[in-house]
Amino acid sequence: MTQVAILGPGLLGGSIALAAQRAGGFRVSAWARRPEAVAEIETRGLADLASTDLATVVQGANLVILCVPVGAMGAIARQIAPLLSTDAIVTDVGSVKAPVVAELSPIFAGHAQFIGSHPMAGSEQTGLDAARANLFDDAACIVTPEESTNPTTVSTIHTFWQTLGCRVLETSPTEHDRMVAWISHFPHLLAATLVNVVAEQDAPAFDFAGPGFRDTTRVAAGAPGMWTEILCSNRAAVRQSVEAMIEKLREITTLLDHDASMTEFLTLAKTQRDRLRLPKPSHV
Amino acid sequence: MTQVAILGPGLLGGSIALAAQRAGGFRVSAWARRPEAVAEIETRGLADLASTDLATVVQGANLVILCVPVGAMGAIARQIAPLLSTDAIVTDVGSVKAPVVAELSPIFAGHAQFIGSHPMAGSEQTGLDAARANLFDDAACIVTPEESTNPTTVSTIHTFWQTLGCRVLETSPTEHDRMVAWISHFPHLLAATLVNVVAEQDAPAFDFAGPGFRDTTRVAAGAPGMWTEILCSNRAAVRQSVEAMIEKLREITTLLDHDASMTEFLTLAKTQRDRLRLPKPSHV
Repeated sequence: MTQVAILGPGLLGGSIALAAQRAGGFRVSAWARRPEAVAEIETRGLADLASTDLATVVQGANLVILCVPVGAMGAIARQIAPLLSTDAIVTDVGSVKAPVVAELSPIFAGHAQFIGSHPMAGSEQTGLDAARANLFDDAACIVTPEESTNPTTVSTIHTFWQTLGCRVLETSPTEHDRMVAWISHFPHLLAATLVNVVAEQDAPAFDFAGPGFRDTTRVAAGAPGMWTEILCSNRAAVRQSVEAMIEKLREITTLLDHDASMTEFLTLAKTQRDRLRLPKPSHV
Repeated sequence: MTQVAILGPGLLGGSIALAAQRAGGFRVSAWARRPEAVAEIETRGLADLASTDLATVVQGANLVILCVPVGAMGAIARQIAPLLSTDAIVTDVGSVKAPVVAELSPIFAGHAQFIGSHPMAGSEQTGLDAARANLFDDAACIVTPEESTNPTTVSTIHTFWQTLGCRVLETSPTEHDRMVAWISHFPHLLAATLVNVVAEQDAPAFDFAGPGFRDTTRVAAGAPGMWTEILCSNRAAVRQSVEAMIEKLREITTLLDHDASMTEFLTLAKTQRDRLRLPKPSHV
């Protein structure tokens, strides 16, 4: 029986608890800052133990998962590090990895085995209410070992995320941040920018919006505070994406005068898009 | 009993047939260029009469709906105009309106009542296979009368689209094209550009794509030929959108250095996005 301690059960933490229950073979404990959140965890039966006391929740844990905002991880890490057994594995679910790994890895050194994770299964929804057991089914989860990471730690965390339904990829923290800027952080900013530019230039056009605009801008409904933290923690990579996009949009304006080139451009996009391995829509 | 002739039953034409059946009170005839398509209409029971002969299909029609590509409308309009009764209403479902209305309106003058329509319910899917009765439920349909359009024609077409499930908006053909550039044509191009720029800059990142990237780029899987026609028919408005977007993306790069401004920007986007009246996702 693996004992998993989930610290901060919102959408991701709550879904980890539910997916672990579904898989079986886990004892789940959960920490929340607010007593109301602890009560909700108990009401929904999400954990075998829930508490506002960190020491109670991490006691005896084989695996500790930090599901709090990136900015809150350091303080919690410092509190729990001395309480863990040296073979306990600690991971997090933050959307940026280089700054998180650089901060947390030294805190856990000599206390426990730290490795970063990023399950790519967020949503514009947040909070425990939105948690569900199938959130990770076929979602990519990226684990980001350092050179010094113990191979057993890497394989244990691989297996854990696979058990929850993820397909697991492995890369360095820096490479992770560069890639995720392209397929998550920058697209988020792009969607928000599209909404704001339409609002500025032609707000009445919103009344004409159909399913295409709905989907293209869906992520713009995400939590502004959380996304500010993500975007600003990964600003160098996001800025590169913005600049490459500006460059490409400049080329586009010439395509509008050449039907054949436009078709070629759209065909290339369609071919690439059709080839993507993507999770199925989960709304019902 | 209203007799509706649907010319070119793909996703939109087929869905009009199904929605009209669902509503009741219509006799539906359908024209397709290919005998195989006529056979499919018959197999699926989409129409009371299906034929490759235009004259047979439009005979006695009160309402004729052109569902062929924009570039094919003129030739068909010239064939059917002399066959219609002068109080018959003709509309189309093209995604651009100014060029369509400018071409078709003179062809039908003295023969029938023409008014442009644009039901905003396309999808990245195409073809009769994807047709469904609920495609128009809560979708916006824009009708684009000219100053010379008969008020009875306007109100009849309003009622027709409402009967199929649409909420109907009215604007001039030119204003339609400007607004739709913002919320459909340009977002399509933006999604295709995002896919192509990631493919160019960092193709391995595609493996990391999650639900956000899936939805943000969904429309990029649309038919390249159809979208070339749409984008190039509306190039002036689309070009303005591209240029405004480039301008806004330039401002973004400075926001990355200022957390508070970024939060404000994302909050504005979220507020606008949350306020939109959008059709519900239809995938199950």
